[in-house]
Amino acid sequence: MSDFPNSVMFREEGPREGFQIEQTIYPLEQRAALIDALSDTGLSQIQVGSFVSPKWVPQMADTAELFQAIERKPGVRYSALWLNSRGYEQARETPGVDLDPRLLFYASDAFSLKNNNCFMIEMRDRQRAMLDHYLADGLELDSAYLMTAFGCNYEGAVDPARVTDLCQWIVDLCAEKSTPLPKFILADTMGWATPHSMKMLIGLVRDLVPDARVGLHLHDTRGTGIANVYAALEMGVDLFESSVAGLGGCPFASHGDRQAAGNVCTEDAVFLCHELGIATGIDLDALVEAARMAQDIIGRPLTGKVMHSGGLDKYRS
Amino acid sequence: MSDFPNSVMFREEGPREGFQIEQTIYPLEQRAALIDALSDTGLSQIQVGSFVSPKWVPQMADTAELFQAIERKPGVRYSALWLNSRGYEQARETPGVDLDPRLLFYASDAFSLKNNNCFMIEMRDRQRAMLDHYLADGLELDSAYLMTAFGCNYEGAVDPARVTDLCQWIVDLCAEKSTPLPKFILADTMGWATPHSMKMLIGLVRDLVPDARVGLHLHDTRGTGIANVYAALEMGVDLFESSVAGLGGCPFASHGDRQAAGNVCTEDAVFLCHELGIATGIDLDALVEAARMAQDIIGRPLTGKVMHSGGLDKYRS
Repeated sequence: MSDFPNSVMFREEGPREGFQIEQTIYPLEQRAALIDALSDTGLSQIQVGSFVSPKWVPQMADTAELFQAIERKPGVRYSALWLNSRGYEQARETPGVDLDPRLLFYASDAFSLKNNNCFMIEMRDRQRAMLDHYLADGLELDSAYLMTAFGCNYEGAVDPARVTDLCQWIVDLCAEKSTPLPKFILADTMGWATPHSMKMLIGLVRDLVPDARVGLHLHDTRGTGIANVYAALEMGVDLFESSVAGLGGCPFASHGDRQAAGNVCTEDAVFLCHELGIATGIDLDALVEAARMAQDIIGRPLTGKVMHSGGLDKYRS
Repeated sequence: MSDFPNSVMFREEGPREGFQIEQTIYPLEQRAALIDALSDTGLSQIQVGSFVSPKWVPQMADTAELFQAIERKPGVRYSALWLNSRGYEQARETPGVDLDPRLLFYASDAFSLKNNNCFMIEMRDRQRAMLDHYLADGLELDSAYLMTAFGCNYEGAVDPARVTDLCQWIVDLCAEKSTPLPKFILADTMGWATPHSMKMLIGLVRDLVPDARVGLHLHDTRGTGIANVYAALEMGVDLFESSVAGLGGCPFASHGDRQAAGNVCTEDAVFLCHELGIATGIDLDALVEAARMAQDIIGRPLTGKVMHSGGLDKYRS
């Protein structure tokens, strides 16, 4: 019936993607406290912030300071996002950043223009330069992101061939540079995916690059987030990017409603994995406490479910 | 990969289950207006209220008046809930109630005691008497509910054999009375189900009563609601009970947090169906408008997702 993985890794995106979308800039101490709480849950990777233009994303302007304010816990990677060489250089110069070299690709021109101010084909060429930059620094590629892989509010439905063409381009680039394939992260940036399209696209990517690890960056904009996680688990996917308490979203995804759901909720996805017998290494109760802390900081009810109901273990003893 | 039904029927529970759990008693006019809005969405069945003890559920004390206040729309069934003969008599005497004779069964003694003040085996005997009552009135049985079928906060995990034993008992009862089998509604009363347990239990019930229509009454307490809908669709299930805007929950399910998620959200489930190419007869945009009306009435952000983001059709044109 399914091909569940034995264990799943979650990369926590809440501190970056969750706080970047808020209009308020929350105090650095509060965000550091949340990251410290997340560090105690068993999560193995937390995205602390981003090195991007403070003009466009002022919420992340203090990312370098935030890295100095957190209490690093052994075994946890503290990562950051950047969109270009300049951001990468900032990340490299900031003490405490665990560098995960990434390439970013768009399956939609309209969103590429909004998010990166260039066409998707230009973005592709920029990523070739980014890879050269990483390799020159002696770093290996960690992940290739395929954004708006399932659809785009600006362009509509996305042809899966656009995604597989990009995958092939990445494969060729890595062969040319004699560098190992990265993880292929399919990003449902605007919440278009269904379990059905999820299975189909994962299958296509797997057929093309059977040796690569496939991961998912999911949003829950239209309520299919956990169903999509389940469909991906059935396909054997073992890497998810998600946000504590369901924080997040995409600042350019134009949903218009401040209550719109954000990224798929980490603790809800962890709950699902545990109920299916899939290990995560995460303490669900501790993660629920961190989600409640996130809600206290943000100051409005957040959209995670398990943070409000609790898990089921207490009823089973 | 799946055995999707061609079309799915939704029974809307929000006006009853959604308002019954609220501590506030909302004005009858507001609830009537919501039902009227729901009547214009293409929903074919709406549960208006319940005939239960006004001492225990004062929010539903005016159900008979509410039936007189709504504008009945042709083609829509307006149903009501009752838990015993007395409630049934009240429903029968109330003009405008579309009677759907139901039997209620518990797979948990502790919840049976909380909800019906009797053990599950006594409840079974009471349902025999209820069936006699219906048959004497010339009515056919519509549905048999199997509550806490997936687990119970009071008893813990529920052995699927309890559910199948109940199913067999119902089959035998119907044979004895020479009356057709009802729909078998598996109710995840406290949000324990996962897609995995969903598929397993549906399979067991199907094996036992292949001729009966299986339906689901789902709650989204721990975020698995839409994933469970998807799993059930893969099993060919074509009948769901859900609540607009995700209203609802169970007053005795003891989650403790006022923001805990309620029933699975109708418009989110309808969105999923439409994206999968499954017909529902429902106008998603109209349903989203009704969900927003529900939120305006309740006066706090509700947990549905599509009501905040909108669907995808507008991006595809």
